[in-house]
Amino acid sequence: MTKNKLKLGIFGFGCVGTGLYKVLEEAGSVEANIKKICIKHADKPRPIDKKYFTTDKDELLKDPEINVIVELIDDADAAFEIVSEAMKNGKSVVSANKKMIAERLPELLDLEKKYQVSFLYEASVCASIPIIRNLEEYYDNDLLTSVSGIFNGSTNFILTKMIDENISYPIVLKEAQEKGFAETDPTLDVEGIDPKYKLCIILFHAFGLITRPEDIFNFGISRINDFDLRFAQQRNFAIKLIAKCNKNGNEITGFCAPTFIEKEDPLAHVKYEYNGVVLESAFSENQLMIGKGAGDKPTGSAVLSDISALTYDYKYENKKYSHVDKNLKLVNHGEYKVYVRYSDEFPAFDDFISIEEKYISPNGNYFIGRISLDKLANSSWIKNKDINVIFSC
Amino acid sequence: MTKNKLKLGIFGFGCVGTGLYKVLEEAGSVEANIKKICIKHADKPRPIDKKYFTTDKDELLKDPEINVIVELIDDADAAFEIVSEAMKNGKSVVSANKKMIAERLPELLDLEKKYQVSFLYEASVCASIPIIRNLEEYYDNDLLTSVSGIFNGSTNFILTKMIDENISYPIVLKEAQEKGFAETDPTLDVEGIDPKYKLCIILFHAFGLITRPEDIFNFGISRINDFDLRFAQQRNFAIKLIAKCNKNGNEITGFCAPTFIEKEDPLAHVKYEYNGVVLESAFSENQLMIGKGAGDKPTGSAVLSDISALTYDYKYENKKYSHVDKNLKLVNHGEYKVYVRYSDEFPAFDDFISIEEKYISPNGNYFIGRISLDKLANSSWIKNKDINVIFSC
Repeated sequence: MTKNKLKLGIFGFGCVGTGLYKVLEEAGSVEANIKKICIKHADKPRPIDKKYFTTDKDELLKDPEINVIVELIDDADAAFEIVSEAMKNGKSVVSANKKMIAERLPELLDLEKKYQVSFLYEASVCASIPIIRNLEEYYDNDLLTSVSGIFNGSTNFILTKMIDENISYPIVLKEAQEKGFAETDPTLDVEGIDPKYKLCIILFHAFGLITRPEDIFNFGISRINDFDLRFAQQRNFAIKLIAKCNKNGNEITGFCAPTFIEKEDPLAHVKYEYNGVVLESAFSENQLMIGKGAGDKPTGSAVLSDISALTYDYKYENKKYSHVDKNLKLVNHGEYKVYVRYSDEFPAFDDFISIEEKYISPNGNYFIGRISLDKLANSSWIKNKDINVIFSC
Repeated sequence: MTKNKLKLGIFGFGCVGTGLYKVLEEAGSVEANIKKICIKHADKPRPIDKKYFTTDKDELLKDPEINVIVELIDDADAAFEIVSEAMKNGKSVVSANKKMIAERLPELLDLEKKYQVSFLYEASVCASIPIIRNLEEYYDNDLLTSVSGIFNGSTNFILTKMIDENISYPIVLKEAQEKGFAETDPTLDVEGIDPKYKLCIILFHAFGLITRPEDIFNFGISRINDFDLRFAQQRNFAIKLIAKCNKNGNEITGFCAPTFIEKEDPLAHVKYEYNGVVLESAFSENQLMIGKGAGDKPTGSAVLSDISALTYDYKYENKKYSHVDKNLKLVNHGEYKVYVRYSDEFPAFDDFISIEEKYISPNGNYFIGRISLDKLANSSWIKNKDINVIFSC
């Protein structure tokens, strides 16, 4: 088997890019050299030789010697322009941009096919956990029934601190921001949007389904208060921001929401910035993969594995998508058990199929009931910031 | 990509074979049908149609229509005969026989190459955990530094019961045997030989090294007594039978031995018949994969994934072996910290590089010291059944 020698053009040189540079120097077996790195701010101090840097993207995209573009920038629209231009110019692409991939997968697949290049993005989902590759290569039959887990390191850090160290949400969020675990605008993470993007990518590789992120319900962790934490502690639950998809015949359900997890559940032991993915199949019972879900090295290692795979001309074969049952569809009529905490009157008990528990006190009120995902997602009361919802597993 | 249609000939029809039969009926996407099953006892009652069964192995091995042999028998020598005959006849092989693979890997690789067939054996290591495929496909560069973990479900079941439920070894062993978790002759499991076979297979796919099982140190769990359990409990340790290999430059070390694990270590939460594999690399930090390590369904699922891969002509590429540094070698001069419990006089303190703790009492004595693996493996006192050794992590 012959190996390709790769010349890389990298977009973005934050911590992942820096880490990637270092490891490429160390990893003798991965025959890939960085030729050029495109950055936004030419005058920022950089840890490596100035000769690598440019602010002109065409120096990478139009260089015939560069055969792989590694896209490591934040902005999803700018990333899409770079990635599509690269593929049009016959270059393979490695990307970590989950937002771009989740939102524009059909276009990206078309480009990949039309220009016969390879487009890999292991780092976009759960950083160092090789979930996409496993879905592609190992769980490549129709026996998989569910993929779920903790897909976001920042919120898992926050929730671990809240539950284990009993610190309130605003204080932990501030600490996470100071430590660089959470963005200055944490919305994508704490509202469950980032893990939802990852779920969309997983849906494609697990079941061959292309979905629009806006069609999947997400609910965040920003409303969790001390009352909710006490409830969790009393029942010996952890709270995790869980993204989950299930396949039942032709029907797929998916959501991302804070969820009570029993302390015996292996996911309860996935703490701080770690991620965990649970794979259920008709036959193999539960599999759990745990690894760091964020950070320079874990993300860099996933990028490096994609680069390494390109030296062997690896491509996702998207087998499930090629053989997908055309009737396969996303549905929201699944029933879920949820905990609802509210302050005054709860306006819509009728939305619930059944109510199992009800608690009223001067400190707060909650009930536990069953509701269809559809009804929950489209309710008006869920927009009320004084109402919190946590799923029950 | 065209898919092959497979006709399977299966050797052995215990619980794994039965499970495989069931799931093949269910899994529409895996185009493989069982043609014949070779069994030892023709008169045993079977859950499926008699027409499948034969006691004549040539009915499978000489049938030109059968293109894949699935080998699921216990006896390693008989398995080798079947597997080599199958490859000679141009048939690909799926096997779960770790003893055969660990002991005869070079011959098996030669046969695979000479007859241009595929030989897959994911089920031989940690059943449902796709560790071989991940080592082959994802950790395919030289950045991996260590693979370790709990590779044996029976002993993990026994140790979990001993530590969590405070039951003595002989009583738990009896229960495990009654439940079918441990063999009537449990030697291969409880003396750490079975996980050592798996470690040999991992060494090949992780680092490209071929080793003889007898060159790797193994020590079992059968000597662990109540004194050792109390020690573990006092220090809040779990005890796990850990197999581990490390790469440092051109030197590989490997062993399999009971090991104290801190309760915060994720492996401490891998309980009962579950297995856990920890992968360390220069760059991705620790990865952990957890899944059931034994049983009909978990093992059957790994066999099925190999069969499914054969429909796409998958082969292990053994990249690390092809590119292996010829100076790579197994060494035993690594230093380890071990706990040694003894009853009377300990005869060989001089074997130790240093002694860190020493405890003497009417109930038993122990010390904790550092020793080279070489010295430990070749000592005469380690054969004394009144002396127990547990590694410290």
